[in-house]
Parts: sequence; structure tokens; C-alpha cells
Amino acid sequence: MKISMGARTLLFPAPVLMVGTYGHDGKPNLMNAAWGGICCSQPPCVAVSLRKATYSWAGIVERKAFTVGIACETRIAEADFVGIASGRDVDKFTSTGLTPVRSDLVDAPYAAEFPVVLECRLLQTIEIGLHTQFIGEIVDVKAETGVLGEDGHPDIMKIKPLIYDTSHRGYHGVGPLLGQAFSVGKTKG
Amino acid sequence: MKISMGARTLLFPAPVLMVGTYGHDGKPNLMNAAWGGICCSQPPCVAVSLRKATYSWAGIVERKAFTVGIACETRIAEADFVGIASGRDVDKFTSTGLTPVRSDLVDAPYAAEFPVVLECRLLQTIEIGLHTQFIGEIVDVKAETGVLGEDGHPDIMKIKPLIYDTSHRGYHGVGPLLGQAFSVGKTKG
Repeated sequence: MKISMGARTLLFPAPVLMVGTYGHDGKPNLMNAAWGGICCSQPPCVAVSLRKATYSWAGIVERKAFTVGIACETRIAEADFVGIASGRDVDKFTSTGLTPVRSDLVDAPYAAEFPVVLECRLLQTIEIGLHTQFIGEIVDVKAETGVLGEDGHPDIMKIKPLIYDTSHRGYHGVGPLLGQAFSVGKTKG
Repeated sequence: MKISMGARTLLFPAPVLMVGTYGHDGKPNLMNAAWGGICCSQPPCVAVSLRKATYSWAGIVERKAFTVGIACETRIAEADFVGIASGRDVDKFTSTGLTPVRSDLVDAPYAAEFPVVLECRLLQTIEIGLHTQFIGEIVDVKAETGVLGEDGHPDIMKIKPLIYDTSHRGYHGVGPLLGQAFSVGKTKG
């Protein structure tokens, strides 16, 4: 039996996205966004939603660019910290010891320590309510050679991305492979 | 060292969303969408991206409503099947044995067997490229009593949501709790 939970932002899983931007003063900044996901295959696009009150919001509007790093298990404290502090008050790269890298493709920085990063140019800005959704065209994905599988593609079990639990605000790891998409369902046909 | 993977839709994790709609003939339908996520807190909104060629696309446009069920480990074959077949060719509820339930709040159905469902009314339609993004206002979330924790909120370890690996197209489970958000990062402050 199902019961009503009310109108709430419950979705399982949510990602833990490290959104990289330059502030108007040129300071590299990083924030933690769970509201986001891939939103188009051609052109390849990712959406992230930010409150207008954040330091990062103006950075995306001004530079028309952002990066999306994939938060991982070994950097859970850093990933959480950039979601607590504001770039207005602190230099988050200095506080965390993360290394800012200037993207060579878009006007935004990323942290070297996260294993996968998407470099995005701003394509659309959608006002929804408390959050503004920024749709970024993914111009390149860069991945650490150490997280690639034998076939040369990123291996999720080596990346060890964090998963955000929207119900109890916890960070989880990824569990084992259960089956292949476009395959395990064929038994139902 | 990071190397270029090209402009690709790689994001970790992606969700496995069961999008429920009525076809123009009134037939309940379900599809599998990995391109989506929460996109606003107030009003609570979820975004799902569909190709215009899908049967579900017209259903959302016509009824201005959809549901989002959370695919779970015990229903991996059903979840995958609705991503392989088209509602144009088959009745996916009949094929899978899933039970269609008419939402009492929006003009869309959902499958009783998935543990959590979001009932959404269409708020915005964003044309991006190959995919159209539908932003739905979450008017209610319904959850099985069996997946609630002792505090009455949904428990991700009881839901056992599927995670989609965008790199190798695999379905994974959720791993153990690693830390609490807005907490584990305080050591970096």
C-alpha cells in the first residue's frame, strides 16, 4: 500500500555534482549540486539547478560556462564542504586543498582531484522557481587514466561516485553491477 | 592525469526513471528515462528528457501530466523492458504484468509495483535538441509503507533503487551509507 509523502523533492538516486565556476573577481569556486542530470543526447547536455542566492549563480551567468566534476568516495569531506561554505566567504580550493585547473575549452575551473569532469558552455537558462536551471552543452569530458576500464571507457566501479539520498541526506556508494541495460529486459518481451 | 573522452553524455550516477503517461488512445504506458533529475525545490520539480519520436512524448504534451516511478532491484527486468519496447507496438503493462494505477491527482498512470512514485503536472517544456525536457511540478510523492524508515521517511536501502551507468550501460544497486551531507565536510572548514 502506498501513502502520501506530500509534494517533496524525493528522487532516488540523485548525483553529487561539483559545479566549477569563476567568480566576478576571477576566483575559482566549487559548489555541490544534487539537482541535476543529463538532459539531452544531441547535443550532449547536462542540467544543473542553482539558487540565485549562490555565489556560483552569477559566475555562470557572467562567464556563460561551468564545469561538472563527479564527486567520489575518497573526496567525500571536500565534496560536502563545498556544499556547506559559500564562495563569498571563503576560497574553497584553499580551504579544502583541492587544486584548481583552468579548463582549456570553457571559461570555468575544475578541481583536479575529482576523477571525471564535464566542461560545459551555457546553452539555456530556465527560471523555474527558487532554482534556476542552467543547461550546459558538454564540449568535452575528461577522465583520469586510472579510472578507465580495459576498453578505455570510464569504469563506474573505479570512479566510485557518491550518490545523494534525498530522503535522509546521506551520501552512499555505488553497489555491484546487477545487469546490462537493453538486455535484461528481453525476457519480458 | 586526465585525458579527453570527447563530448559525451557521461554522468555518474544517472537514475532509472519509470515515466508513466496515457497515450492518445487512453492506453497507460511506461518508459525508462535516465536523462532526468530534480530541478527545483520550490515548487518541487523534476525534469525528464524524452525524444520526440517516443510514444510517451505525445502523451505528456496532450495530457500535461506524467508520473515518475523509481525503478528498483526486484523489478530490473520490467524496468529494462519498458526501455526497449515502444508503447506504439505493445501494451507494456500487459507484457510485463505490471499493474497500472490511475493517479488521483494528475492525468497519468503509474505502476503499482515500483516503491516510490512522483505525480507531476507539466510546468515547462524545453526544446534542447534531440531531446525535449519536460519539467513537472511534483504535486505528491507516494511511497510503499514497506520502504519507510522508523522515522516515517523513505529509506533508500529499502527502496533499493537502480543506478544507471552511462559509460557501460549497466544497472547497479546502491551501496552503504558513507556519511551525512552538511556534516562530514565540517572538518574542512
